[in-house]
Amino acid sequence: MAVNLTAPEVLHPVKGVRLGAAEAAIKKPGRKDLVLIELARGTRVAGVFTRNAFCAAPVLLCRQALSSDVQIRALLINSGNANAATGAAGMEDGRSSMVAVALHLGLRPDQVLPFSTGVIGVRLPVNRMMDAVPAARASLREDGWLDAARAIMTTDTVPKGATRRLHTSQGEVTVTGIAKGVGMICPDMATLLAFIGTDARLSQKAAQAVLMQAVSRSFNCITVDGDTSTNDSCVLFATGQVGAEEVDEHHGDLAAIARAVTDVCRDLAQSIVRDGEGATKFMTIRVDEAATKPEGFAIAKRIANSPLVKTAFFASDPNLGRILAAIGNAGVANLDASKVSLWLGDVQVVENGGRAPSYTEDQGKAVMQDAEITMRITLGRGIESATVWTCDFSYDYVKINADYRS
Amino acid sequence: MAVNLTAPEVLHPVKGVRLGAAEAAIKKPGRKDLVLIELARGTRVAGVFTRNAFCAAPVLLCRQALSSDVQIRALLINSGNANAATGAAGMEDGRSSMVAVALHLGLRPDQVLPFSTGVIGVRLPVNRMMDAVPAARASLREDGWLDAARAIMTTDTVPKGATRRLHTSQGEVTVTGIAKGVGMICPDMATLLAFIGTDARLSQKAAQAVLMQAVSRSFNCITVDGDTSTNDSCVLFATGQVGAEEVDEHHGDLAAIARAVTDVCRDLAQSIVRDGEGATKFMTIRVDEAATKPEGFAIAKRIANSPLVKTAFFASDPNLGRILAAIGNAGVANLDASKVSLWLGDVQVVENGGRAPSYTEDQGKAVMQDAEITMRITLGRGIESATVWTCDFSYDYVKINADYRS
Repeated sequence: MAVNLTAPEVLHPVKGVRLGAAEAAIKKPGRKDLVLIELARGTRVAGVFTRNAFCAAPVLLCRQALSSDVQIRALLINSGNANAATGAAGMEDGRSSMVAVALHLGLRPDQVLPFSTGVIGVRLPVNRMMDAVPAARASLREDGWLDAARAIMTTDTVPKGATRRLHTSQGEVTVTGIAKGVGMICPDMATLLAFIGTDARLSQKAAQAVLMQAVSRSFNCITVDGDTSTNDSCVLFATGQVGAEEVDEHHGDLAAIARAVTDVCRDLAQSIVRDGEGATKFMTIRVDEAATKPEGFAIAKRIANSPLVKTAFFASDPNLGRILAAIGNAGVANLDASKVSLWLGDVQVVENGGRAPSYTEDQGKAVMQDAEITMRITLGRGIESATVWTCDFSYDYVKINADYRS
Repeated sequence: MAVNLTAPEVLHPVKGVRLGAAEAAIKKPGRKDLVLIELARGTRVAGVFTRNAFCAAPVLLCRQALSSDVQIRALLINSGNANAATGAAGMEDGRSSMVAVALHLGLRPDQVLPFSTGVIGVRLPVNRMMDAVPAARASLREDGWLDAARAIMTTDTVPKGATRRLHTSQGEVTVTGIAKGVGMICPDMATLLAFIGTDARLSQKAAQAVLMQAVSRSFNCITVDGDTSTNDSCVLFATGQVGAEEVDEHHGDLAAIARAVTDVCRDLAQSIVRDGEGATKFMTIRVDEAATKPEGFAIAKRIANSPLVKTAFFASDPNLGRILAAIGNAGVANLDASKVSLWLGDVQVVENGGRAPSYTEDQGKAVMQDAEITMRITLGRGIESATVWTCDFSYDYVKINADYRS
């Protein structure tokens, strides 16, 4: 039961990107679990990956491939198996899948990026994946985005996609992205898996800069359960099919393209929270008047990850004590509690560190009934702000995670 | 349903300590919620308190009183209301309760330490508390420990106490303690409320040193939900009724007394975890071969606080992926995943960062059936160790915390 989230109705094709999906029998029979994305010659690819020390084999392989000068021309994504905590064998399996795709598309293996998501600690069924590559290739098409979004799902209940079109000095540019993820979500770099394509002619440096900025304002601002995955990967590919001039860091079109990429990433990130495991509420936590952005984020994330706050939201309980305790625990040095104020929606709950004199419990409860709740905190320490999006903790969160593998 | 925990059968009286309890109508009718502890002249009192920036009024008042040279002679503890996030009014309420006790016992107000636990953000019913002080005083007795343990409970299901007797060069010394707490438990200094008495003649400096060491090896090693309370307080009182010589930091009896205090604190800390909200499992997480103790603790606490690990334990699911992801997220710099090994009970699950070749899922499942599970991790980085005790996350955890105030 996702919070105000349905499958995307339109995902505009991106010139120079074709997507195909097939069944490799990694997940249950009848479900596509292998996606192939083919990128036109000249495409610039930028990526950001998990900082988890136990990062998965495909993450290591992607980092290797992206650090060379070789042109990336294809992405292979499987769901149902994360190829994480699989040691040297996992690296070999990942490389084998790259070789298989390269053979079918006439590429070199390091022109293929591998991505995996699913169960950790089990070897990848790489033979079944190789067998399914031809079918995935045969289904490649420009409007394959939604099919691909479905095939990368694991415990997701809704396929996640977002799309934007914008006018630039060189013509109409499209930005389209897909993502998956509902649990083990507290991205430190990017979310579980997200793929954003644009036909803009971005330079390599501009592509990486646009992606970094977009991720810092989207995927890095969400949390479901505070656990950073081993497989987080977010990739932007810019096919360069629109326009003659390359858009570098100084080009007049860069800001508008960056905004569209950020908007797509934010839509995708919020979709992940809305489909968070067991979620019944979508919460926006905004911290204002922080001395620095990191301290604002520390407080917002501490609130967002507190099991006591999350269960109170599930119960529609405006439990200010739990929220204040979380603020006090965020590790911000010299935080003066008497300068802290807090609003739930438009209702001021805390003033100068204590219950606001005007506040009544009924006001708080009325706000908490909504499925979408905004909490705003002012710290009285400076002018920086930070916003984090999260969901509540319900019975279904426990049920989903206690039943996941059984 | 606490995990292998019943009320203590014996709590040895401590010479120089008398305890009384009464009903102040803070909690439901018929439940004692006010405890008075009277300390003999000459008692040394040491305390450690929460580091939460939103610490409660009684914590601030205790810190003030303990920083002066005035002799502490009484403790007043109420359950049902935490007197936290109550601002200046909360400080006045706390002081009023100190004055009331002082008048009844012929003391000065700053010879009384106040403690509160319960709902946050609501003013203390200080008039009802004052009315109940005479009844608490009338019930003062040396064997009042268990009654007091019951009266400080909030959502606790079992009263928590521990006791030790030891022979010293100056005669038989007793150490007895009580504690409460089941949620908002991730002590950064001490747990919700714990009171440990001994009749040893400890110097002030020795008392503080003994308490700090005991807390670092007990309360600071547990977590239920990763949320540090606003009211954590742990106090040691040494009445000095046994022995003629003062036991200072160089006295031959200090080590044995410190060990007994640590044992009592560890029993109390583990009791809190066993009675953790919704707990069905008691987990010991031990990290060996860490480069430093803090990094060992960081990894053990990250595992212990991961909702994904906690729900897997509830489901008796040996989900090694979630455990490895938590290790990788602990923020330990340059952690080499390929040197990490992991055991559940006696079963090696992970070897060199990957699934151990000898491991079968059935072995893991067999270990996970127990109500008491030990997990051991070796990092291959050094010789330091750290141990953390925690419990699982069940449906009842959500139920208890979603229903707490309704």
